Amino acid sequence: MPFSPDARADLDRYWSTIEASAQIGMGRPGGLSRLALSDADRDMRDLFVEWCEDAGLTIGIDECGSIFARRDGRQNELPPVMIGSHLDTQINGGRFDGIAGVLAALEVVRSLNDLGHVTRRPIVIVNWTNEEGSRFSPPMVASGCFVGRYETGWVHDLVADDGARFGDELSRIGYKGNIPCGGAEIDAYLEMHIEQGPLLDAEGYELGVVTGGYPSRGIRARFEGETAHTGPTPMDLRHNALVAGARWLTAVDDIGWDYAVHDGKATAAKLSAWPNKPGILSESAEAICDVRHPDPVTTRVMAEKMRRALHESAARAGCTASVEDEWHWGGDIFDAGLVAMVRGEAQRMGLRWRDIQSQAGHDAYFLATHCPTAMIFTPCKGGITHNNREDCAPEDLVAGLNVLLHTAVARADR
Amino acid sequence: MPFSPDARADLDRYWSTIEASAQIGMGRPGGLSRLALSDADRDMRDLFVEWCEDAGLTIGIDECGSIFARRDGRQNELPPVMIGSHLDTQINGGRFDGIAGVLAALEVVRSLNDLGHVTRRPIVIVNWTNEEGSRFSPPMVASGCFVGRYETGWVHDLVADDGARFGDELSRIGYKGNIPCGGAEIDAYLEMHIEQGPLLDAEGYELGVVTGGYPSRGIRARFEGETAHTGPTPMDLRHNALVAGARWLTAVDDIGWDYAVHDGKATAAKLSAWPNKPGILSESAEAICDVRHPDPVTTRVMAEKMRRALHESAARAGCTASVEDEWHWGGDIFDAGLVAMVRGEAQRMGLRWRDIQSQAGHDAYFLATHCPTAMIFTPCKGGITHNNREDCAPEDLVAGLNVLLHTAVARADR
Repeated sequence: MPFSPDARADLDRYWSTIEASAQIGMGRPGGLSRLALSDADRDMRDLFVEWCEDAGLTIGIDECGSIFARRDGRQNELPPVMIGSHLDTQINGGRFDGIAGVLAALEVVRSLNDLGHVTRRPIVIVNWTNEEGSRFSPPMVASGCFVGRYETGWVHDLVADDGARFGDELSRIGYKGNIPCGGAEIDAYLEMHIEQGPLLDAEGYELGVVTGGYPSRGIRARFEGETAHTGPTPMDLRHNALVAGARWLTAVDDIGWDYAVHDGKATAAKLSAWPNKPGILSESAEAICDVRHPDPVTTRVMAEKMRRALHESAARAGCTASVEDEWHWGGDIFDAGLVAMVRGEAQRMGLRWRDIQSQAGHDAYFLATHCPTAMIFTPCKGGITHNNREDCAPEDLVAGLNVLLHTAVARADR
Repeated sequence: MPFSPDARADLDRYWSTIEASAQIGMGRPGGLSRLALSDADRDMRDLFVEWCEDAGLTIGIDECGSIFARRDGRQNELPPVMIGSHLDTQINGGRFDGIAGVLAALEVVRSLNDLGHVTRRPIVIVNWTNEEGSRFSPPMVASGCFVGRYETGWVHDLVADDGARFGDELSRIGYKGNIPCGGAEIDAYLEMHIEQGPLLDAEGYELGVVTGGYPSRGIRARFEGETAHTGPTPMDLRHNALVAGARWLTAVDDIGWDYAVHDGKATAAKLSAWPNKPGILSESAEAICDVRHPDPVTTRVMAEKMRRALHESAARAGCTASVEDEWHWGGDIFDAGLVAMVRGEAQRMGLRWRDIQSQAGHDAYFLATHCPTAMIFTPCKGGITHNNREDCAPEDLVAGLNVLLHTAVARADR
C-alpha cells in the first residue's frame, strides 16, 4: 500500500520525548551537560532503548557503543535506510543539539507503527557515540569508525581530560557492544538536526535543505620552549611556550576577522600550557584552532595563513611548533539525488525552505563517505547553541520531522 | 673576643649539605621538584631540623610552617639577627635557588660553633614556607604573614591546583607550628641567594651587593564570555574568553619587547580557560601577567599599558575583563646601613663585587618592610634558573658564604 502523502508524525508525542530527555543530565537552567559515556549518557541510552523496544525495534550495539534500533521491512535482505543523530551533549549544551534528530527518527518509526506501514527496506535508527568530542577528543569517533576512518582499538584507547579511557567507560556504562565497526552496507543515511546558526530563524524559514558543509580545516599544534624564571630572564632569552600559543590564537582570530565579511570564521578553541604557573616560563603548550569559509579555495587560503602563523608565533616566542594533527571536512559532500528528494518533500508540503550549508561538524559528514547521505536543518532561536539557552518551539521542529518521515519512507520504499 | 677578620666558613661542609639536599625531591636530571608542603618538602625539613639540632640550635615553627633555628647570643633579650631563605622549589626547579641561602646560614652557625664565637645578639636561621608559590599561589606567603601583610587564616585556606588546602597540608607533613605569625621583633634580616640572572656570571663578578629589587607590577585578571558553537557563530557574535586572554598575553609580551632595550620585561605567566575544548567557545578565562623595569616610573607606565591592554583585549573578543588581584614590589627597599655593611665586607675581602638590583621576588622584600634587610647575590651559570639546568660550582658560592658570615657576625655583635 502506498504511503499517504498526507501522513503526519505526532508532534506532541515527539515533543514529550524531548522533554523527557531534558530531565537527564541537566546542566545549567534549561540546558544539558550529558557528556559521552557518563552516567547521564547511560541513563539516556537506557530510556532510548526502552522506547525503541516498546516500538518493536531490534537493538544492536557496536564496539564503539553506537546503538542501532532496527524496524524490519518487507525485504530484509536489502540494506537499510538509516536515520538518527546523537544523544550526547557539550559540557554546557542545549536540549536539542543531536537529540532532536534521534528522537525525530524514533517518532518516524512510531508513526509508521500507528499507520501500519511497513517499508520495503528496513529502517534503522542510530544514536552515534560521542559526536560532541567534549569529553573524548576528537568528535564523531563512532561514526568515523563505522565508515572505516578510525580503528576500533584507537577509539577505545582515547583518554578523556578526566583520565578515563573510552573503552573502559563503554564497559562501565554497559554499552560496549559486539557488532564490529566498519563495512556495514547502508542504503542511505538521513539526519535531521537543529541549524546551530541564525539563518533559518532570522529569515523566517521552516526548514533548511543541507547541500553540504562549510569547508573546515583545523590544526592541533604543540609548542616547545623552556622553563626559566619569569623575573630576570631577558626578553630575547625567553622560550615561553604559553606566549607562542597565545600569539597563534591571536593570529588565527585575526584571520577570522579578515574573512568575516564573507562569513569566514576562525576559532581559537583550546590552549593548555605547562607548567602554566606564576614565577616560571612555560615549557610546552598544546593548542587547537580551525578556520571555516563557504568557499573551499578561500578555506584553503585561510588554513595556509593559519599554518604560517603557527610557525611565526612560535619563532616570535623563541619556541618551536609542530603540527600534531590536522583535519578537514565539509564541501559538497551530500548525495545530489537524496538532497533533491528532501527538497522535493519540502516543496510538496508547501513549506518555507531554503538550501543551506552546514557550518558545524556532523556524523553525516562521515556517513557521506560511505553511502548516499543528506541532512535536514530545523530553525533554532537566534542560532544559539552549545549553550543552555539553545531553544526551539515544537513549531520549529514540525516541518523537519515530517520531511524526515516522508523522505525516509520514500527512500525505504524505493 | 672580637671575631677574626680572617675567619672563613667551611666550603666543603657547606657543599655537602647542598648535595644532600639535591637527593630529596629529585626532578629532571640535576634538578629538583620539591613543591611546598609535599612529602619531599617534609623530608628536606626533617633533615634540616636534624642538622640544626646537631648544631645545638633551638627549633621553633610558626603557624605558617616556617622553621626558626635559634643560636643564643650573649644578650638573649635583644632581637636576633635572622639569616636564611627557602628550601622549596619550582616544579622544574634547580638545586640552588633558595636552598643555597638556607644552607649558607646553617654553615655560618656551624662555623661559629667551630670557632667558639658567641655573638652578642642571637642568630636565627629561617626556612620560609612556600616562597616559590608553585603549588600554592601567591608566592612568599609565610614571610608575608610574618610581617603582617597576610592573615594566618587566609594563608591556611589557600588551595593548590591539586585541590589540597595549605593548612591541611601543613598538618599532614607535621609542620603546623604554634608560634603566632606577625609581630616578632628582628634586629636585621640577611639573605644570600643565587642571582637568577646572567650579570655576575657574564661579567666575572664573585658577588652582588643587592641594593633593591626591580620594580615589578602584576595583575591576575578574569575574562567573562559565553559558550557557543565554534562553527556557525559569526565572528561578531562571539564572546570567546580564551581569545580575550590570548590577546592580553600577546599584548603584554609586546610591551615587554617595547622596553627590552633598557632591560624591561613582561611576562605572560598563566592562562586557563573553561571549557577550553574543541567544538565550544570558552566562557571564562583567568590569566596572570607582570611587568618589570629597573626604573620605577617606567614600570608604572608599563603597568598602565598592561591594564589598558587588558580591557582592549577583552573588548576585541566581545568579553569583559576584571582585575582579580594586583601587586607590586621592588624599588629601593633595602636598608642603606646594612647594604653598606655587606659592601664593606666584600671590599675588605678583596672580592670582585658589584651593586645589583634583584629581578626576582624574594622573602627579603617582605622582611624589608619589617626590619633592616639586605641581600647577597652569588653568580649562577648563564643566569639559568627555575630549570633543572640551574648550576653553580662551589667557587661561585664561597664569596657569598663568607660575606654572609662576616656581615651576620658584625651585625649580631653590634
